Amino acid sequence: MKTPRAERLVDMTHYLIERPRTLVPLTFFANRYSSAKSSISEDLTILKKTLKERGVGLLETIPGAAGGAKFYPYILEREADEFVNDMLKQVNDETRVLPGGYVYLSDLLGQPAILRQVGRLIATEYLNTKIEAVMTAATKGVPLAAAVAEQLNVPFVIVRSGENKVTEGPTVSVNYLTGSSKHVEKMELSRRSLPTGLNILIVDDFMKAGGTINGMKTLAKEFESDVKGVAVFAEGRANERQVNDFTSLLHVDTNLDSGEVIKVQLGNYKENIFRGRENKIVRN
Amino acid sequence: MKTPRAERLVDMTHYLIERPRTLVPLTFFANRYSSAKSSISEDLTILKKTLKERGVGLLETIPGAAGGAKFYPYILEREADEFVNDMLKQVNDETRVLPGGYVYLSDLLGQPAILRQVGRLIATEYLNTKIEAVMTAATKGVPLAAAVAEQLNVPFVIVRSGENKVTEGPTVSVNYLTGSSKHVEKMELSRRSLPTGLNILIVDDFMKAGGTINGMKTLAKEFESDVKGVAVFAEGRANERQVNDFTSLLHVDTNLDSGEVIKVQLGNYKENIFRGRENKIVRN
Repeated sequence: MKTPRAERLVDMTHYLIERPRTLVPLTFFANRYSSAKSSISEDLTILKKTLKERGVGLLETIPGAAGGAKFYPYILEREADEFVNDMLKQVNDETRVLPGGYVYLSDLLGQPAILRQVGRLIATEYLNTKIEAVMTAATKGVPLAAAVAEQLNVPFVIVRSGENKVTEGPTVSVNYLTGSSKHVEKMELSRRSLPTGLNILIVDDFMKAGGTINGMKTLAKEFESDVKGVAVFAEGRANERQVNDFTSLLHVDTNLDSGEVIKVQLGNYKENIFRGRENKIVRN
Repeated sequence: MKTPRAERLVDMTHYLIERPRTLVPLTFFANRYSSAKSSISEDLTILKKTLKERGVGLLETIPGAAGGAKFYPYILEREADEFVNDMLKQVNDETRVLPGGYVYLSDLLGQPAILRQVGRLIATEYLNTKIEAVMTAATKGVPLAAAVAEQLNVPFVIVRSGENKVTEGPTVSVNYLTGSSKHVEKMELSRRSLPTGLNILIVDDFMKAGGTINGMKTLAKEFESDVKGVAVFAEGRANERQVNDFTSLLHVDTNLDSGEVIKVQLGNYKENIFRGRENKIVRN
């Protein structure tokens, strides 16, 4: 029995949103709903229009008998600004300042709604770029990496620093120079967690001089990966940076000469995501 | 201008699915679509029917002028069995066995589609229970905890073991007995990451004797929390368990007396999720 349009629309929305960047063939939906492909095409036109109007994402529709639909989640600049400004207000709190120029963020990065918005934001920068895996450093980068990977619908891998853990099997390790204290540390990634030759996006919660991120870049090279970008929730103050090309939502200064304990500003996301590259789609 | 029903259905599906267990008032939708509440009520009836028929979740509709809708994601037993049996096949691989009875799972627990299904499964057990936070142990439990927290729409917190990290601020720490090697370790949780007095669900990737989970229970007590349940992706072999009441998807034995290197069976999820409690909704 043919599924009515109203029910098709509800199910298709759910189905496509749960599978970002995946081509779902017209024939799949036609069989699922015992409906003609022409009806499914009309449904997809409604979906495309609504998801665009509500700023949810781009539904790419591929016409023809072999065609289908692919959903690319994004965030529009207006919604991104509103979200990042809300984060700015929440981070701008003296009690968040920790020794060594670090800032307490775990409460924010443990909230599903915040993680989803960060994921949508970062995914928007790579709307036209094929990313095949997300890489992060244990432990605090993990929730962010998982959120970005979800929006891009690719796997994520966790790099571990310090002493060997016994529960990962054979690993590849590299040495790296920590930015601030300038000593040599070791980080490693399980050999089987990442195939070689992938396009990679590096994600982390906080970056100061960029030592950890630089280490991940070196490690990615060992896996013959191509690092397509670096994204962090917040960048801290750094006299010398080891990493120059990155996107940040927030810029956080602590213990300034002026006597201020914390000063939070917007990071470079507006420039990188909404002004840069070819993201005409999300300029509004 | 009034939004047509077709567009309302697409947007409402997206809106409700992104906000599990949150009451969205009828008036909110009525304003959003410049539509009568009676039309919105009819829309919600279509959504409810479709989400149920497709096994996506329960849309609770609260009637009346002050009413609205709340979406509870779940998974039906049939889909859960299919998923867990697929996991069983993938885990049943000799090369996954690591020293000390551990099993390599990071490749699976780094895939968004797998994490979503685990999240739906665990959330199904707590369909009728108010959970206010998810707790896990660094590092490998984090992706699972984030996935479960997303389906329950609650924050998650990460307990760290071993030496003090400087980036978390004031912490509460407890000592615990590791299950296998029986030595005393320390684990800690940042004081500000968890309010006191919450209903908590403990989630981890792998449990052997249960030392880590027992430690988390002790830590939860320090936060005056009520541990409502424990869920793990896989349970390993243990001669003596410190934790008895838990839900597992898989049971993994390694290096058996029979000479087998690995033996994977279903965990106790069927009993705990689909036979137990009052989950009549998801029995099919």
